[in-house]
Parts: sequence; structure tokens; C-alpha cells
Amino acid sequence: MKNFLSVNDVSDVQGLVDEALRMKAHPQNSKIGAGKKLGLIFMNPSLRTRVSSQAAALNLGMEVIVLNTSGDSWQLEFEEGAIMNGKSAEHVKEAAAVMGQYFDVLGVRTFPSLQNREDDYSEKVLYAFVKYAGIPIVSLESATLHPLQSLADAITIYENSVSINNRNPRVVLMWAPHIKPLPQSVPNSFAQWMNAWGKVDFVISHPQGYELDKQFSQNAPVINDQEEALKDADFIYVKNWSSVNDYGKILPVEENWMLTNKKLKLTNKAKVMHCLPVRRNLVLSDEVLESEASLVIEEAGNRVWAAQAVLSSILKNG
Amino acid sequence: MKNFLSVNDVSDVQGLVDEALRMKAHPQNSKIGAGKKLGLIFMNPSLRTRVSSQAAALNLGMEVIVLNTSGDSWQLEFEEGAIMNGKSAEHVKEAAAVMGQYFDVLGVRTFPSLQNREDDYSEKVLYAFVKYAGIPIVSLESATLHPLQSLADAITIYENSVSINNRNPRVVLMWAPHIKPLPQSVPNSFAQWMNAWGKVDFVISHPQGYELDKQFSQNAPVINDQEEALKDADFIYVKNWSSVNDYGKILPVEENWMLTNKKLKLTNKAKVMHCLPVRRNLVLSDEVLESEASLVIEEAGNRVWAAQAVLSSILKNG
Amino acid sequence: MKNFLSVNDVSDVQGLVDEALRMKAHPQNSKIGAGKKLGLIFMNPSLRTRVSSQAAALNLGMEVIVLNTSGDSWQLEFEEGAIMNGKSAEHVKEAAAVMGQYFDVLGVRTFPSLQNREDDYSEKVLYAFVKYAGIPIVSLESATLHPLQSLADAITIYENSVSINNRNPRVVLMWAPHIKPLPQSVPNSFAQWMNAWGKVDFVISHPQGYELDKQFSQNAPVINDQEEALKDADFIYVKNWSSVNDYGKILPVEENWMLTNKKLKLTNKAKVMHCLPVRRNLVLSDEVLESEASLVIEEAGNRVWAAQAVLSSILKNG
Repeated sequence: MKNFLSVNDVSDVQGLVDEALRMKAHPQNSKIGAGKKLGLIFMNPSLRTRVSSQAAALNLGMEVIVLNTSGDSWQLEFEEGAIMNGKSAEHVKEAAAVMGQYFDVLGVRTFPSLQNREDDYSEKVLYAFVKYAGIPIVSLESATLHPLQSLADAITIYENSVSINNRNPRVVLMWAPHIKPLPQSVPNSFAQWMNAWGKVDFVISHPQGYELDKQFSQNAPVINDQEEALKDADFIYVKNWSSVNDYGKILPVEENWMLTNKKLKLTNKAKVMHCLPVRRNLVLSDEVLESEASLVIEEAGNRVWAAQAVLSSILKNG
Repeated sequence: MKNFLSVNDVSDVQGLVDEALRMKAHPQNSKIGAGKKLGLIFMNPSLRTRVSSQAAALNLGMEVIVLNTSGDSWQLEFEEGAIMNGKSAEHVKEAAAVMGQYFDVLGVRTFPSLQNREDDYSEKVLYAFVKYAGIPIVSLESATLHPLQSLADAITIYENSVSINNRNPRVVLMWAPHIKPLPQSVPNSFAQWMNAWGKVDFVISHPQGYELDKQFSQNAPVINDQEEALKDADFIYVKNWSSVNDYGKILPVEENWMLTNKKLKLTNKAKVMHCLPVRRNLVLSDEVLESEASLVIEEAGNRVWAAQAVLSSILKNG
Repeated sequence: MKNFLSVNDVSDVQGLVDEALRMKAHPQNSKIGAGKKLGLIFMNPSLRTRVSSQAAALNLGMEVIVLNTSGDSWQLEFEEGAIMNGKSAEHVKEAAAVMGQYFDVLGVRTFPSLQNREDDYSEKVLYAFVKYAGIPIVSLESATLHPLQSLADAITIYENSVSINNRNPRVVLMWAPHIKPLPQSVPNSFAQWMNAWGKVDFVISHPQGYELDKQFSQNAPVINDQEEALKDADFIYVKNWSSVNDYGKILPVEENWMLTNKKLKLTNKAKVMHCLPVRRNLVLSDEVLESEASLVIEEAGNRVWAAQAVLSSILKNG
């Protein structure tokens, strides 16, 4: 693997899931990263992604240096030909190239503005690092995708599907309410991975107006009736996202889409997933989160093995 | 040792002091932490505790990941059953459980509000991590106690008591002035450790109104007259704290309780301790801090061996 | 080497350049830092200096702990005899001495106020750490100098001078425009190193009013006419700085001193250097930065070997 920006960089999704599970079984078996340096640039705060990526790298023997650039410490310019007499003190052309001098692999985390769809969906920040750093780039979540999360999700589904024989597990990506407009990166990426993996019966369920971009959701069936979507589900992947069409907006939804134990009874004893952090009793009820159905902690734990399999694959290529 | 939240987690205080001194003599003798990860969560800024804990863990071969969550980056919910439609984005139930997936040992630093005594003294933040993380928790100072500091203090007293024979050293915990309301965690913890250690003749001295909580001070004699308290003292542990009874308040005190060289002459050539940071010429005079009597730098240095002994004891148990 | 505060701490500049180039050829050959701890204190934000210093230390096997004290987390008192009843919570006497307990080597980054020349040029912050820490101090840029940058600059000039025979390369330190008042630390330090190195034909060029302090520029010729200064130049070191005489001020300059390809044609095919970050099309044009003439990325990369040679020299001494 050269870069890890989306599932499109993965030639064999199942192979990567298998590799991650080998690492989970023997976390510190390979020191392929010894003497190598991983830089982690966070343009927005992160705890889960930072810690799991750092833990993964340490397991491989890499040294990790974290750069938190949230706040005003590093306002980068991205425009070609800009006369830089304003706020930005450094162009990404230099910033990325310099990081390329210091590290062997670079992780970059950036968020969408949720103001300008074209701008966000162009992924200009991530691609600028790919273009100018000259070293492998790992997305730690970008404006439209979160592939490390999706790989951890695939691992979790795979681990919890062993009892399902002779058919693919039915996986429902289900919209949930929230009080803030959230990025589409997690649902976009989850849809893209489920489609590419091809080992699940994948369905998307959301209120009208919350359609995902077709480049990610592709031909996955969309069910706007929550009760109908729950039927026969083996996994419910719960997540809020803001509207793509009315970009970045929260649209009025009449029914309460929060997942409860009562609704879970409509499923095929489905397991419940969420990328965390989750707002209790808004997105998911206490009773669901504290039931046997919840996989959220295990799923968060699998972030380490996802990152470790990705870093290992990149280092093997280098 | 399973957790390290207070002296109550320590079966043998003198044994732990001895272990710390063995580590001071040979800092990198044991790599018992190799391949283990320590997370350090700071909900409030820290320099001394962070660096000394990190240094201790590195000496043992552990990998350390620091999480500074001060600011608004990680507002946790602690209420049972909360409908999380406000500021808090994650419940401690998930937050702690996820950290438990990533680390082998977790250090947590939290501070009191100094607004609500019952709330602070319940130690809800620290205990929530103990309850939900599923891994050993080390207090890096909590709302009411600072056990790593107190262990370093015991080490320092022990090292400087070698010339005192046939009797216990007389140790006076002495209140000092300050311009801000400060927590009671250091004096509470110091009192608790001195009482549990049982190897010192322990006395508390403060102006009326600054009584400590009896659960920590126990039967230690309290002397409200500073001059009387100084007599025969071998160690003066200087520290400001705000009122417990009139919770979190600074009460008017007529006399100036700042320790000076003149007052020190009343003692048995006492050594002077303070946990730092110390405001010069408010809490302690320049002349005391720069005299032979001051142990404050040595005491701060002993924070490393205190943390190292605690981490080692936890790792041995694991 | 005991401390690294300026070129005056270096007995043999060429020897240090040679040592850095040996490290560039074999980055992880020596683990002289194994078991040693480097503290990096940043009183102002830093990315390049932090990452390159950290990378250098890791190459030598050192453990690194970074302390970002920008913001209000650690307001230090520097005045002798101060009654600390204001904002400062700790005196540098304790702060530095405590850091000296935790680390083997301490890097310190501080910036000038640009308000009070005497104060800035006294380097009180850096010298206080030297006085009170009791361990070797490395300047990570101080109020008036940036010696790690200058060593990286010397390395870069040396590497790119191989084709120049029978004479010294002509190196021009050239002022450039900026929209903010910047420190003089980089030009001061560059001038001091070029003078001490003695292997270059060194010239300074700036508009009138931007004279550098003679203690650093010494007898280096000053040319106020930019075109004249460009003639026969082999290296142009471009950098803005604020006025020393009208301290910290931006003075009106009629001509546009931004370096362009057109101006570069007046030189002896000069290479262009800048310490970065650089504001494009204000300090340097896009066309210069993207031409073969630009050494800025290579120069930033050399920061690692500069720091590594310095740390190694200090560790050998210890």
C-alpha cells in the first residue's frame, strides 16, 4: 500500500481484515517499524484516533511525533499563487515537503467546513499533503472519509459474524439524531467499505433528505422507514450525519430515530455499532449501550489493529 | 497494588519508600514495563506530575501517551441517565472503557471545583475511571488527594532523617498564605500518609478555620499558634489550602504565616518542604528557599522515584 | 560542548558541520543517548524546531518529553526578590532546577518581546535556565539568536559548495519584506556563524535602517543597494527582520525587496535559502521557490542533523 486515503487504496479488504486480526492476536510480533518515524498531524482535536494510531505505531516499533495544529499555531495556505500577506504564515507546499523530510509516514487529520460542499468534497487539504510531502500519507479522517474507522468496523463485523452461515450478514447503516451538524465522513466511508468488501448484505436507512453522495453509497438500497430497515438486520451501524444536498444542515425529522431496545427487538438479534463518541439518550439509549448487543467498546479497541495493519502494509511497501 | 488512589491502596508504606530508593540508586535496572502502555489523562494542566510520571514510566521501559484534555476538547458527562443534548459529547462510561482498550495502566489528573464540597469529596471523576476503565488507575492528583506527591514527601523525609536516632522525626504540616483559593489535596494526602506511615511525630498547624477533613487528618494534633508549632520541628511542610468548612474560601488571617528564616530559628534546625510551584515571598521567603534548610528541589526530584515505585508495583501485580 | 546557546559554544564550526554530515549519512549509527532524557520547553509555538529536535534525539536513542508552555499554563517569574502575589505562579529558580532533576539535557525556546531591546538582548530567560537548571541547555531559538538554524544553514551551504574551487563561496544575507515585525534572531545568528566559520565571503544587504547589532554582524560589509549585493552571489539567504535601532518596528521601504527570478539573474547562479516558514509572493516569489535555485526544503531537512550533532557533542561531554 502506498497511501491510505480510502478503501480505493486497498487491493484486498478481506486480506487487510485478516492481517489486522493476526496483529490483535500477537500485538508486538513484528517490529517492522523500528527506526522509522510516524508524524501525526491533527488540524482538529482527536483522542481516539490519536491514541489508537500511536499505540499501533508503538506496537510496530515506530517512533511517533504528534503535531496538534488546532488553534492558530499553523494556518496553512492552500491556494495556488496566493500573495501571502494575510493570516496564513506557511504554504502547504513547504509545510508538507518539510514534514516529508522528517518522517517516514505521515498521518493527517482534517475536518470539513460543512459550509462549502465542493470545497470539502475536493479533499484539497489531504491531497495537498499527498502531492507535496513525498512520503506515504495515512488519512486520520478527512473532510469526506474516515477509512481507519471503517476498517475497524469491518474487523468488528467479521469477528461477530462467525455464527452466521451460508449467507452474508445484513448490515444496516442507520441515521440517528444529533444536536449539531456532523460531517458525513463516517457514513460515507462505511458505505464505501461495505460496498467494496462485498461480504455483507448492505442497506442504508435514513429520513428523506439525508441521502449520501452516490460516489460512496453506490447501489446500496436505501430504506426511509426505520422499522422496515430494522427487520432481519444482523448489525445496526448507528450514526448521525448532516445533509449532503442541503449541505451541512440539520433537517427537521418528525419521528425520533434514536435506537432503543424496543426497536432492536425488530431485528435478527442485531449487534449495535457506533464509532464513538456517542451522546447517550440522544443517539443511542442507555439500555442499548449497556446491553449485550452493543459492540461499541470492542469496535473502538479494534481501531488499534486497523491502524497497525495499515501502517505495516505501508512499511512493507517502503 | 491494583490501583493507586490513596495511601489506602498501599499495604506497606515503608516498603514502598524503600523500593523507590532502590530505583533512585539504579533508575533503569528493571524493564518490567517493556511492551506496556501508560496513558496519562490531564483534565487540568500539569508540568511536574506529567514529566515525573513520564520519566518514571520510561525508566521502566513503558511507552507513554499523554492526553491533555483541558480546554474544551473532551467534555465528559458523569451523570447516570443523562440525556446528552448539551455540552458534553461523551459519557465517562464510554471514555474510560475505550481508554481501557488502549492502555495497560491509566493515570488520571483531575481538580476540585472548590464550589461544591460534597461533589468534590465524592471523587466522582476518579472513581468513574476506576469503575469503567477496567485497567489499573493511578491518581495524578484528584479532587481531594495527591498520593504521588505524598509518597515523594515520605521518601524525602526518610532520606533526610538518617541523623535522627532513637525517636521519630517531628513533622509539622504548616498552612501558609496565598492569593488564590487552592485545593486541599496536598495537605489532605500528606496528613493521610504521615498517619499511615507511623514513623513520624506528626502535627498540623494552621489558623483557625482551616481545619482539614478528619477522615484524612485523623487524630493528628492541631496547633493554631504558629510559634508553638515550630518548636522542636525537624521538618516543616509548608502549604496553602483553602477552607474546608467554609468550602473553597480564603478566610481572613491576622498574622503573616509566611515562613521566614527568623521563624525557622525556633525549630530544631528543621528542613523545609513544599510541593511546588511556590510563590516566593508570599508562601516562603527567598532566604528560606535559598538556604540549606530547603529540600524543595530534592523533593520534586523524588517525584520520579515515587511514580516509578508505584508503576512497578502495579505492573508486578498485572 | 557544555551548552549550545550560540556559535561561541562551538570550538570548531567546520568540525561540527562534518559531524552533522556523518550523521546524515548514517542517521542511527550511534545510540549515545540511550537511557538519557531530553526535555524540550517551548514558550512559543514551534513545529519545525520541535520535530527536528525530537527526530534528532530519537536517532541518538534519547527519550524526549515536550513541554508546551505557551498559553497561560506556566507563567514564570524572572525578577530577583519579587513578591509573587501577581500572575506568575513559579519562579524560574525553582522551575529550571526542577527540570534539571528530570532531564539530562534541556532545550529551551523563547521569543523576544520586540518591545524592549535591552530586555530582549539580555537573554534573561535563556540565561536563567543556564544558571538554575544545572544541566546542559540547548537554545531552540532565543530572543536574539537561533544557532540550530544557523548550523543547518552552514551544513546546507557546505553541501552545495562542492563545485566552487579555489575561493570561498559568496554568501549574501538579504533582507526581505514582511507584514509583521519579526525577531532578529535568525539574521543575527546567521551573521555570527558565517563570521565565525570563516569559510565564506560574507555580505549583508538591507535597506537603510535595518542595521543588525554589531556584536553579531561584526565587520561584514553592508550593501544597501540590492542589485549591487546580488552581483557574484553564490548563496542568497533571504529573511525579513524588524529594525534593531527603532526597536521592533517596520520601517517604510520604497523599493520592493522581494526576491524574484529576474533579480536572481544578476547573481552567479546563486542558490536561495530561507529558514521557513516563508510567505510566498511577499518574501520570495513562487517562481524562485519552485526553481532549481531553492534549497529551502533541503535546508529544513538539515535541521535534524544539526540538532543531532549538537546533542551528540553535549552527550559526549557529559
